[in-house]
Amino acid sequence: MMKAQVYTVAKIFEGEIKEADLKLEEEELPPVQDDEYLVEAMYLSVDPYMRAYAKNYTVGQVMIGIQAGKIVESKNKNFPVGEIVVGNLGWRTYTLVKPSDDYFIYILPDVGNLPKSIALGVLGAPGMAAYFGFLDICRPIEGDTVVVSAAGGAVGSHVGQIAKIKKCRVIGITGSEEKARWLEFLGFDYVINYKTTKDLAADLRKGAPKGIDCYFDNVGGDTSSTVMQLMNQGGRVSVCGAISSYNAKVPLRANVIQPDIVAKQLELKGFVSHQFRDRWMEGLNQNLRWVQENKLKYRETITDGFENATRALMGVLKGENIGKALVRVKASHVEHESVDFNNALSKFKKFQGHR
Amino acid sequence: MMKAQVYTVAKIFEGEIKEADLKLEEEELPPVQDDEYLVEAMYLSVDPYMRAYAKNYTVGQVMIGIQAGKIVESKNKNFPVGEIVVGNLGWRTYTLVKPSDDYFIYILPDVGNLPKSIALGVLGAPGMAAYFGFLDICRPIEGDTVVVSAAGGAVGSHVGQIAKIKKCRVIGITGSEEKARWLEFLGFDYVINYKTTKDLAADLRKGAPKGIDCYFDNVGGDTSSTVMQLMNQGGRVSVCGAISSYNAKVPLRANVIQPDIVAKQLELKGFVSHQFRDRWMEGLNQNLRWVQENKLKYRETITDGFENATRALMGVLKGENIGKALVRVKASHVEHESVDFNNALSKFKKFQGHR
Repeated sequence: MMKAQVYTVAKIFEGEIKEADLKLEEEELPPVQDDEYLVEAMYLSVDPYMRAYAKNYTVGQVMIGIQAGKIVESKNKNFPVGEIVVGNLGWRTYTLVKPSDDYFIYILPDVGNLPKSIALGVLGAPGMAAYFGFLDICRPIEGDTVVVSAAGGAVGSHVGQIAKIKKCRVIGITGSEEKARWLEFLGFDYVINYKTTKDLAADLRKGAPKGIDCYFDNVGGDTSSTVMQLMNQGGRVSVCGAISSYNAKVPLRANVIQPDIVAKQLELKGFVSHQFRDRWMEGLNQNLRWVQENKLKYRETITDGFENATRALMGVLKGENIGKALVRVKASHVEHESVDFNNALSKFKKFQGHR
Repeated sequence: MMKAQVYTVAKIFEGEIKEADLKLEEEELPPVQDDEYLVEAMYLSVDPYMRAYAKNYTVGQVMIGIQAGKIVESKNKNFPVGEIVVGNLGWRTYTLVKPSDDYFIYILPDVGNLPKSIALGVLGAPGMAAYFGFLDICRPIEGDTVVVSAAGGAVGSHVGQIAKIKKCRVIGITGSEEKARWLEFLGFDYVINYKTTKDLAADLRKGAPKGIDCYFDNVGGDTSSTVMQLMNQGGRVSVCGAISSYNAKVPLRANVIQPDIVAKQLELKGFVSHQFRDRWMEGLNQNLRWVQENKLKYRETITDGFENATRALMGVLKGENIGKALVRVKASHVEHESVDFNNALSKFKKFQGHR
């Protein structure tokens, strides 16, 4: 009899998440039947949307989330033992998957020497958000000026690098010096620390002397209202997230954006990664190729131990992570250490960004 | 020697427009040369965008605007005497048009017994805003629920009727009982007076029990933030105007809309009529056909006398007009009286709209 640890929702999140909002429980799993298989979680993805979706949660449900895990037992020939699967199995250490379940689940293609955690970052939902959300909605062309907010996160840092691959000028808005430095290292042309800038509009004008063509928005609120003012005719805005609102108990207020939408005939489009499910492998394979060609770098902020997952989520909502935030379920799953960016960065001359 | 009266910008508008912001001047026009023709203004269009564009004005320039006029002298065989032309000639009683000018100008097709003023309303820029802005951007399908703000205006009332032609459920938001009653008469399914409602969200929920699929937005601000909360997955928002902001001296603030844009994967698109210039005649002819088939009704608020044009514009920005606001340049141009809606309305039983 297999025992799984499971996080359930103890209290619908209100304002900032507290540790007591999620409860760690134990669950007994029945034996594997025909066509079923058992997945042992290796990594849990920790994402801002988990806060945004809270109003749809019910007390007692298993906490949602995508994980990468290993098939440890199987009576399903399409999902053999040893394969790594990625799926929305929630925050559980073990999951018995039945073919009748409507999980979005797939076997991770061969990633060579790369760590399997990449399945949740550059090759996972954030990677698809960056790939489809930027290319399909912002439709960048060579020479465009692109602004990315929450640029130090998994999605933002990825978007900026795709924009560089597409020969755009890229401006990142981020919230710490450490993240800013990393973004410069990644090739961002201009980086603004929104926490220390005295005049975001003035900084944006310096960074984007030709105005802004594409805006990849992870934050919403007044930061976005300011970006919108500086957009060019026909600009495209990909609305990936609105993290500035997620912890707010009453609706956040900001300068209205409709006058700019009309005056410049802007297009804004919200999206979620899973709407691109039918093209998922296109995004996954292209992102993998860029990583292998060293055109796409990524960073991970790994929290060790299933028991620390709630704290990891709290950190993400405070912007404590750089790059993809993950929980490594067991120490035995250590297969890599993150690339030592601090070492690389120490050799990297400071860029001309204004912060 | 022909003398024209011309409005020039005396002061860049700030806050509410004042009469002294525009100056009435006289200008001598040279004789008509080869390929030129002389247009005598019949009607001036008066529109909210004239306030919105103010920051691009320069003191001394001729006030912008579209007019319908008659060709009274011509040395251009493509524009013969007697034809009615529509063009962005500005607020002038007479205009000498040279082929080298980059006016957007065209001869009004035969409208039969209909008054020529229709050229600026249902068949003019507002009509094109309604036709293209709604059909191309909102992409309504049968059974959709459509919300229109500033529904009593030229564009809004037109959009609502197209939505009915397309078999949608239509909810109008307007600012007076008189307009509300008119909208019900036009076939709107539900009308909300935003000035008297105690709870716009609750009223919208009553009017749109299945949620909102399309929003045609003329106002921006908190009204729009509230509509956005009730939109369905994949909803489309056509942003035609932001009249709530136009007179504001400091940027208006409202509840942020990005969380709804992401959560429901909404699409918002701003536009201006003239971006559809290459399809203008498609819109004009379809609107004309609907008018002739009695599927599309319109109303006009006509101010008599060129000397009252500024006041007409001030009225539009206060929402005083019902339907298309026009200036009839000379009393001699009276060719019709507006359809007597008051009479028709007196026979019309009040609808179940909540106001």
